[in-house]
Amino acid sequence: MRILKLTEETRKNLQEDLLKRSPNSYRQYEEQVHHIIEEVREKKDEALFAFTKQFDGAKLDSGNVRVTKEEIEEAYRLTDNKLIDVMKKALENIKAYHEKQKQYSWFDSRPDGVMLGQKVTPLARVGVYVPGGKAAYPSSVLMNVLPAKVAGVGKIVMTTPCDREGKVNPATLAAATLAGVDEIYKAGGAQAVAALAFGTESIPKVDKIVGPGNIYVALAKKAVFGHVSIDSIAGPSEILVLADKTANPRYAAADLLSQAEHDELASAILITDSEALAEQVSCEVDKFTAVLSRKDIIEKSLENYGCILVAENMDAAIEAANEIASEHLEILTSNPFETMMKIRNAGAIFLGEYASEPLGDYFAGPNHVLPTNGTAKFFSPLSVDDFIKKSSIISYSKEALEPIYQDIVQFAVSEQLTAHANSINVRFEE
Amino acid sequence: MRILKLTEETRKNLQEDLLKRSPNSYRQYEEQVHHIIEEVREKKDEALFAFTKQFDGAKLDSGNVRVTKEEIEEAYRLTDNKLIDVMKKALENIKAYHEKQKQYSWFDSRPDGVMLGQKVTPLARVGVYVPGGKAAYPSSVLMNVLPAKVAGVGKIVMTTPCDREGKVNPATLAAATLAGVDEIYKAGGAQAVAALAFGTESIPKVDKIVGPGNIYVALAKKAVFGHVSIDSIAGPSEILVLADKTANPRYAAADLLSQAEHDELASAILITDSEALAEQVSCEVDKFTAVLSRKDIIEKSLENYGCILVAENMDAAIEAANEIASEHLEILTSNPFETMMKIRNAGAIFLGEYASEPLGDYFAGPNHVLPTNGTAKFFSPLSVDDFIKKSSIISYSKEALEPIYQDIVQFAVSEQLTAHANSINVRFEE
Repeated sequence: MRILKLTEETRKNLQEDLLKRSPNSYRQYEEQVHHIIEEVREKKDEALFAFTKQFDGAKLDSGNVRVTKEEIEEAYRLTDNKLIDVMKKALENIKAYHEKQKQYSWFDSRPDGVMLGQKVTPLARVGVYVPGGKAAYPSSVLMNVLPAKVAGVGKIVMTTPCDREGKVNPATLAAATLAGVDEIYKAGGAQAVAALAFGTESIPKVDKIVGPGNIYVALAKKAVFGHVSIDSIAGPSEILVLADKTANPRYAAADLLSQAEHDELASAILITDSEALAEQVSCEVDKFTAVLSRKDIIEKSLENYGCILVAENMDAAIEAANEIASEHLEILTSNPFETMMKIRNAGAIFLGEYASEPLGDYFAGPNHVLPTNGTAKFFSPLSVDDFIKKSSIISYSKEALEPIYQDIVQFAVSEQLTAHANSINVRFEE
Repeated sequence: MRILKLTEETRKNLQEDLLKRSPNSYRQYEEQVHHIIEEVREKKDEALFAFTKQFDGAKLDSGNVRVTKEEIEEAYRLTDNKLIDVMKKALENIKAYHEKQKQYSWFDSRPDGVMLGQKVTPLARVGVYVPGGKAAYPSSVLMNVLPAKVAGVGKIVMTTPCDREGKVNPATLAAATLAGVDEIYKAGGAQAVAALAFGTESIPKVDKIVGPGNIYVALAKKAVFGHVSIDSIAGPSEILVLADKTANPRYAAADLLSQAEHDELASAILITDSEALAEQVSCEVDKFTAVLSRKDIIEKSLENYGCILVAENMDAAIEAANEIASEHLEILTSNPFETMMKIRNAGAIFLGEYASEPLGDYFAGPNHVLPTNGTAKFFSPLSVDDFIKKSSIISYSKEALEPIYQDIVQFAVSEQLTAHANSINVRFEE
């Protein structure tokens, strides 16, 4: 891995490279995505099935677009029992963590008859998009579905592309069943997002669409945002390891590679104040890469988006980590908790040498759907918050309104909104 | 006002009419908005000032784009003292309500050395867009700025268009000062949104942009979403009054008109189970409209988007209200609290005959920035939640990782992610 001195310039150049991976840089696909969306919005199932034939090569109709109970049972049988056991354990941890995120309605009364409050309601219907293709990510199914489940969402609908024969990956179906998905449909790409946003004869309209996908899925989600809600738009995966000289270079190297293997656009960055550690990690990275099955992907990812930055001191290293705002941040320092308190921007923060990043991907409980590409400055991990919404509650008595009603009238009149003033005055007319 | 029988058909037709007002129906402006954004992104101040000259007729440069201390002091002097007093009272109520929304970091330790948590961090920089034009809405300044202030946002930047002479409405500046805005810039339209999203020599880049605006502002916010965060996209204002025969028809009528006066696209709907009330409210609406200063706007708004629906019974009325998911919902029934418990979808809910909607617009404390156009099914009022973000925290001990490490490896291998497996295995190699 290349080793550079951390300066404002090297950090900014790196961030510019990373930002090029953003879905915002793919406007050339927008027209096609809008076309797909408009077709599905207008012609519903007819368009959905036509695009499925065109893009996935599968012939679907209203009779077989929904995954049947039999298909689910078969998938469950086909899935390795050991994997099912692991998924069950992971599911318990994920549920337990997300239970702690629950928010409750509150109401606050005053003696003069004023009651103000905030009502929390789970979303009625949520759509979870699950990518298809060769690799299946059952962990992603658990992470997207379980927060909705904990929030109390009324109906959870999943869509995932099928292969040419109409089959869906068995582990995906098994995970969906364990997580408690209500309905599963064979649909992928922008056409699936459009079907969830507007509804078709076969697929119900939902209130929010979550889940990762390729650039078409990301652009389609952005296009339907406002008509429905969406989670944040996922970019390629990232890890940033903050380490001082006390870090184990083999652990740091292995963890960097765990993200670099995701895809060629993934990013792995080490920032340290120790030149010796930088050299050691670089050497360990080479040794591991040579024997890892996804060597080709790793090499491309490291070449374009991987980097070791050597900082003057740990404070400068921490400041750079805050600027980069990585999806995953590992802290391998002598006092990880102390370092963590200085972190303002990161999706998930892993403390100490046994909190390896894949522990969070699969098992510990916090969500692995995290803000990428610097968006940890303003976005949060997927959580129960994403599946609830709030309503303000206002109740007033005459006793409470009377002493202030002229203030409100004054305010309304200053904004030239006389009908607003009238609706207050009418309560106190003779 | 037209009176119709509530049926699934009348309700759906009404909703279809309302949805036509959505910013999603204005794709014809998108190219122009993208052009403005790209220009400002590339040429920064130069483009910003050129568009300001073109659209607002004002000649600005880096020397006068920021509102000075002197301009603010002058604006404060020019603002009616009574209005300043009212704003101060409103500010206290708004702050007190939003203080209750604050969320805190939490950490949870287990005896085996596992610590999981969630860290809450306020956003570093927020941009508040405030529309210009003839009418100033200082209440909107308070409602957009104060939740950010309560959340602990590091820097709050406001942009608002100036007139041809470079002047900004005094009440807007007074409200911004009271609310504690850090910097104010004279900029409006899509060019202001672009400046906040990407930064220029004069205007700092922010992490999130909030605030209402015209269709150009709404489309620009949607276009930069992902690069920065935004609040939900505001549509025209709406009120839905749920009333039974016990309601005061004058109050119901006055409250419907308080929203109808906002603009020609605003919507005012009454749903009741009482034909007698329907007739009375319709009659009162006519009487009030005849004497209100914004008569012309009101008449157009009521004609296109206003309607009284008479339901078979209150349960059907409530169900229709949940389907329409109005921005403001007033409950004028014999048992407003009981009715409220059946409401799933509304931005703000006003209970009983003294909780007139303008009380919420100006004074009570809950935010008046609310989800419109049916989006209350999945969006929430603007709140402190909008100005914080969360990071997951994971710390594990060797003792806790050892018994489960093979489970994680199993899961990773099932997803063909061998470098993930390696980063766990390396912790337990001989």
